[in-house]
Amino acid sequence: MKLIKTPTKGMNDYLPGETALREYVKNIIVEGYAASGFSRIETPSVEHIENLTGKNGGDNEKLIFRIMKRGEELARAEESGADLCDSGLRYDLTVPLARYYANNSSKLPSPFLAMQIGNVWRADRPQKGRYRQFTQCDIDILGDSSPLAEITLISTTAGVLGKLGFGSFTIRINDRRLLKAAAAYSGFASETYDRVFIILDKLDKIGIDGVSAELLDSGFDPEAVGRMTGLYGGDGNADLFGFAGRIGGEETARIARDIDTVMKASAAAAGNGFTIVFDPSLVRGMSYYTGTIFEITMDGYGYSVGGGGRYDEMLGKFTGQNVPACGFSLGFERIVGALSDMGYKVPRRADDAVLLAEKGLSEGKTLEMFSDAARLRSEGKRVLVTAKMKNYGFQKKQLEAEGYSDFRVYSDN
Amino acid sequence: MKLIKTPTKGMNDYLPGETALREYVKNIIVEGYAASGFSRIETPSVEHIENLTGKNGGDNEKLIFRIMKRGEELARAEESGADLCDSGLRYDLTVPLARYYANNSSKLPSPFLAMQIGNVWRADRPQKGRYRQFTQCDIDILGDSSPLAEITLISTTAGVLGKLGFGSFTIRINDRRLLKAAAAYSGFASETYDRVFIILDKLDKIGIDGVSAELLDSGFDPEAVGRMTGLYGGDGNADLFGFAGRIGGEETARIARDIDTVMKASAAAAGNGFTIVFDPSLVRGMSYYTGTIFEITMDGYGYSVGGGGRYDEMLGKFTGQNVPACGFSLGFERIVGALSDMGYKVPRRADDAVLLAEKGLSEGKTLEMFSDAARLRSEGKRVLVTAKMKNYGFQKKQLEAEGYSDFRVYSDN
Repeated sequence: MKLIKTPTKGMNDYLPGETALREYVKNIIVEGYAASGFSRIETPSVEHIENLTGKNGGDNEKLIFRIMKRGEELARAEESGADLCDSGLRYDLTVPLARYYANNSSKLPSPFLAMQIGNVWRADRPQKGRYRQFTQCDIDILGDSSPLAEITLISTTAGVLGKLGFGSFTIRINDRRLLKAAAAYSGFASETYDRVFIILDKLDKIGIDGVSAELLDSGFDPEAVGRMTGLYGGDGNADLFGFAGRIGGEETARIARDIDTVMKASAAAAGNGFTIVFDPSLVRGMSYYTGTIFEITMDGYGYSVGGGGRYDEMLGKFTGQNVPACGFSLGFERIVGALSDMGYKVPRRADDAVLLAEKGLSEGKTLEMFSDAARLRSEGKRVLVTAKMKNYGFQKKQLEAEGYSDFRVYSDN
Repeated sequence: MKLIKTPTKGMNDYLPGETALREYVKNIIVEGYAASGFSRIETPSVEHIENLTGKNGGDNEKLIFRIMKRGEELARAEESGADLCDSGLRYDLTVPLARYYANNSSKLPSPFLAMQIGNVWRADRPQKGRYRQFTQCDIDILGDSSPLAEITLISTTAGVLGKLGFGSFTIRINDRRLLKAAAAYSGFASETYDRVFIILDKLDKIGIDGVSAELLDSGFDPEAVGRMTGLYGGDGNADLFGFAGRIGGEETARIARDIDTVMKASAAAAGNGFTIVFDPSLVRGMSYYTGTIFEITMDGYGYSVGGGGRYDEMLGKFTGQNVPACGFSLGFERIVGALSDMGYKVPRRADDAVLLAEKGLSEGKTLEMFSDAARLRSEGKRVLVTAKMKNYGFQKKQLEAEGYSDFRVYSDN
């Protein structure tokens, strides 16, 4: 029986050139994160199904790759009609991090600056730039409730994108508490906030008139819709203090001052030019966010390449005690895709060597060839040892395309 | 509901220090492999269940983590009583490589030197040093039937272990065709070879008398057992040409000459001292091996840290056409475990800095602090920005333990 050649649906084989670019970019990201004091950690790809379905994953919980029980446990479950699944592939790195921190916090510093580079899996409908196995690059600060956490996360991420050569990108920032204050000010009932936010999130695309129409269509109180339209409709939408002032209240003013500091200090610390703007209509999907939220878009690309925010109440679900937490995740494939579109190339060394063995080379010459290879490698060179082919011209061309420039043929003559 | 803190059974959370060691070792392995011309590739963790159960995985096929179908497909399977599973986590990197090569060979050079560093999963009984998620470091040469492939694989692997500081390790080498010739010479029926080899494989542990007794117990012909005992019982067991000479035949002599060249040239090319010995009782479990087989053991450790061999007939199961192939796999956790036992430490930089913010730091000073952080990072330093705690003495000690040595406090006074 012939086996199946293609990868499973929505997942990728990466060719050597693609993998080289991926690894090169990954190293720059890792080094950039480490330079700000983040420590890399690793958690398993497989998580307890209970943790994955604990309402922390939002819509991602519908996309889980479920893993079956094994052996006797499977047989028992089949017989009793119990759930056949006991675990699943993680759909993000945040749920595993929360579990990890709960499991290991006594051995970790506080605050803990965590770096995770790892694969996640979602059984999403595959489309351009969206895969069923993809890599997330996350940094999280656990145990710091101050805006220093936000500044470090945003400036580090912006700095890494700068090192990768991205000149123009925009970070939008908002705060869940401001969103709630805006909804309360407008007069929406608190149990309807999430539905209101889902519609408000479309402001960028459908404008304030579209948002207003959709809210009214959904049966919301016209007076509340009118107040929200007034709040979000003006020209001075991105004016942080103006927006907060219209809502009013001391707490709102304090949040606005923190956002202001985060924006200014992030720009100062990133050490490269980028735009950071207040966007009061930014919502972000995950319900676990409790404070600041942020998102990066590449200018010229329609999609977000990363985002994050503060989730002060999630760790409590594992430990029973809340720990302040804030994170920023980069979508690795989107960044590599954008770089690839820009024609980004991995720098290549000039002096890679190939030692070629003539057919039937004697043992003595073979030993000489491999000793030479060892010596050249100890000098820092990449050295390929291979058989010289009949069509040497073609072979040489192929090897030159792989970056080799120094060719040495070994023969007994 | 409180969630589950511990990782899933047999899988690991890695602390920052453990992860730092793992990444450091991984980089040395990747660089060592690349220096011999291996190109890194990446395949998905999830494979078609058909490929995983195609008899290429040996006993590993019993240990598959099976992934359930999703959505309508799952509902249809449940209704019709069809298989609920459509895929699984890979249990090695060889089956995915064979699929990858079949899928992509037109875009790959020939011979193709592939490097894979990736996780694999086996639902094995967890025990010390054996986990359900672990990392394999594989190099494979596809499309080269000459012993140059074996020499490159063995010398590269030995060189990498040398760079990691392992001074004393032993590589044992044998050839499946020699094993078969020995069994044929002894007079065993060819359909019983695999059963004979499983017993012969224990020679190291139970000696030639133990092997002989077990073969007789299993009902094998006493005459054949006697001839095999004669072949393997002598003192000159590790004498390659003596062993091959006792079996006789031109093919056997040719194989012995190739093994001899592989042994000598591997030692020459590795550029570091290690022992490579011929071991005619080395069997290796996987039935897909067709020629040379090899295994590494650390002197002083009871277990193998890696192994491999030639599998010239496996790729044909995907493509319909055989491609010569040979690979060498290192068990990453075993290597990291051995290094950890040896007290191996990741080298640390001396000048890492911490900028500490006094409580209630003004916006102006905060901007200054983050600007300083950006400047220090651009000079190549690792710089952590964090809040100064009430118990600064304890905080400083904790940070010193993490490797920081340069402490700067920012305050408005």
